[in-house]
Amino acid sequence: MKVINFDHISSNQILPEVQEAMIAAIREGYHNPSSQHTAGEKALEALEQARTAVAALINAGESKEVIFASGGTESVNHAIKGVAQANADKGNHIIISNIEHNAVIRSVKRLKSQGFNVTSVSVDESGRVNPDDIAKAITDKTILVSIMHSNNETGTLQPIAEIARVVKSRNVIFHTDAVDSVGMLPIDVQALGVDLLSFAANGFYGPTGVGGLYIRRGTRVWPLLEGGVQEHNKRAGTENLIGIIGTGVAAQAARRDMQKRIQYLSGLRNKLVADLPGYIDDYIINTNLEHCLPHLLSVSVKYIEGESVVLMLDDENFAVSTRSACATGSLRASHVLLSIGLSHADAQGTLVIAFGVENSEAEVDRFLVALKRVVTSLRNISPLYQRGNLAASA
Amino acid sequence: MKVINFDHISSNQILPEVQEAMIAAIREGYHNPSSQHTAGEKALEALEQARTAVAALINAGESKEVIFASGGTESVNHAIKGVAQANADKGNHIIISNIEHNAVIRSVKRLKSQGFNVTSVSVDESGRVNPDDIAKAITDKTILVSIMHSNNETGTLQPIAEIARVVKSRNVIFHTDAVDSVGMLPIDVQALGVDLLSFAANGFYGPTGVGGLYIRRGTRVWPLLEGGVQEHNKRAGTENLIGIIGTGVAAQAARRDMQKRIQYLSGLRNKLVADLPGYIDDYIINTNLEHCLPHLLSVSVKYIEGESVVLMLDDENFAVSTRSACATGSLRASHVLLSIGLSHADAQGTLVIAFGVENSEAEVDRFLVALKRVVTSLRNISPLYQRGNLAASA
Repeated sequence: MKVINFDHISSNQILPEVQEAMIAAIREGYHNPSSQHTAGEKALEALEQARTAVAALINAGESKEVIFASGGTESVNHAIKGVAQANADKGNHIIISNIEHNAVIRSVKRLKSQGFNVTSVSVDESGRVNPDDIAKAITDKTILVSIMHSNNETGTLQPIAEIARVVKSRNVIFHTDAVDSVGMLPIDVQALGVDLLSFAANGFYGPTGVGGLYIRRGTRVWPLLEGGVQEHNKRAGTENLIGIIGTGVAAQAARRDMQKRIQYLSGLRNKLVADLPGYIDDYIINTNLEHCLPHLLSVSVKYIEGESVVLMLDDENFAVSTRSACATGSLRASHVLLSIGLSHADAQGTLVIAFGVENSEAEVDRFLVALKRVVTSLRNISPLYQRGNLAASA
Repeated sequence: MKVINFDHISSNQILPEVQEAMIAAIREGYHNPSSQHTAGEKALEALEQARTAVAALINAGESKEVIFASGGTESVNHAIKGVAQANADKGNHIIISNIEHNAVIRSVKRLKSQGFNVTSVSVDESGRVNPDDIAKAITDKTILVSIMHSNNETGTLQPIAEIARVVKSRNVIFHTDAVDSVGMLPIDVQALGVDLLSFAANGFYGPTGVGGLYIRRGTRVWPLLEGGVQEHNKRAGTENLIGIIGTGVAAQAARRDMQKRIQYLSGLRNKLVADLPGYIDDYIINTNLEHCLPHLLSVSVKYIEGESVVLMLDDENFAVSTRSACATGSLRASHVLLSIGLSHADAQGTLVIAFGVENSEAEVDRFLVALKRVVTSLRNISPLYQRGNLAASA
């Protein structure tokens, strides 16, 4: 039986038109875009066409402000470590938020061991950073602020344009991790006013292992990968041209279908939110429904463990996630959920449900039935649930 | 007319069986290998199968000593920067050779700006490092030696096992950049005695933008990309699974066809060496024909510019390179050729001819005719050549 993927934050299907473009590129047998002969020039043309498509998707001023890389993680590491090191003569202070992705958190942790100071600002209960908190945190030593565009566990959006205004008024470099936003929402780097922005192709139905970094012209940042002169000397290494060609086509499709997708995906999400009370009780919605990605809902179901729900839903052929796929293997409660005020116990029962364009309303209906069955049977064996019920009836 | 690719050091075709595996992976629509549900497990299985194939190709003791990355450049940056930073408490001295790839040279240059000291040893006129020179260069502060397995411009092999013995007897970490060797020659990391070894899938007819690093168990090295727990916590970021699956199949094919390929490719190279004097004169062979890759020949043709030869051969439908594709855009003479004793003028006239399995003897014959035509017409307009001839006839 076909698995129904409600875990699109971990992986999106590759769009059929993207698949075809990648397969054509495989069969074409492109040469190296850095080679000087005609075969190299053809490859370079394909590379630059993809760059132009991504630049259009995020409204970059020039296509060469877009640098391709091996994904969101590389781009975030590049932005944070590269800006810190290139601007160490100006200061050693970096500001992030408490709910950033581990790529940000671990990059700044590494920099801390190398003499940088880091301030991590909290978010309010709705999961959002207050731009005033950023303004207060900036010092004369601040060289970089990095705040994510949308959170990968809750789907909550941050007020990036407002934060950018604060940061740029102090002449500090601003990076936003927009890995889960680019291609899902209209993103305009010029309107946002950011200096750097990370993206991943799989976020908009392109292949995994491809992504990149928008670097506003004139931004001081060291390369993370050094060697050849690829990507305008900003990222060395022979390009993953097949993946990049797919990324270009995915970017075109995202731009073309943006409004249609938002409407369809938020329709599925709104249906789930509206119908959920008819199936289960005692849950917390972690997503800020006023400011959020269209396709994602984070729900903490009380008295049970998210991991058990994931495994039992898997038996019912539904793929969902209990949190970021990147945190697999770690048993600690999500730092994101604790930051928005959840207790450890409630955080354990979290499900991240992320829809994709191939999902349907009928699947949501079937999911709700399966979820009710799973939650009921898990609560029946949950000592926490029984204690909660005893307390309520006492 | 189909371009005849004699520039396989810049780009190899993707083998038909690798193409088919990648296309099947695209159509399969793998999920994220880090996800906990069945769909994630299937992806993880495909990932680990590829890892096992690469581990077998280089005879790694355990498959988890192989870390996938976005190519040779990332792996080299990871090895050099990661070892330097993880072992900075022990010392700050690094040894490389004068003929390393720019990925090595620029990585150590970056480390120099961060307080590390670098010794770069020379090679002899045959293009080889003397292990005694490494022994002499090692100090109590030395934490890393990085010497390439084969040179990407000349094809000359280094005495890696001998150098490793010297380095390991002093308890220093040893990395070899084997990007142009893995898959072309038998490589056995255990027999070589290296701690780290970089490879690239396109070197053995896999896709570009995929490669990796062998890290011997217990080697102290920091990750370059940090974030999620992928690749056993050594390299974060969602994997380029389509490219990695292709890499696994390419590794299997390389292991299976190794001897056949070596025989065929060295046959083409030996034919070129043997027939060349019948077509042009006044040239220097830069490749050490006793210790070399099977498929590559570097020839410096006197009195002309390699770049003009590349462009004119391109008009005749032959793709060759004048040097590393990574150095495009730079007009300086190759540091590799100057290091092996060439004059600036002779270095300018260099052609790197690298054969692939799809090339034929008939193509070599046609190439020689074209080369003669090109060299003759360029020399006819070369003031250097006319002066050389006048001097000879004087």
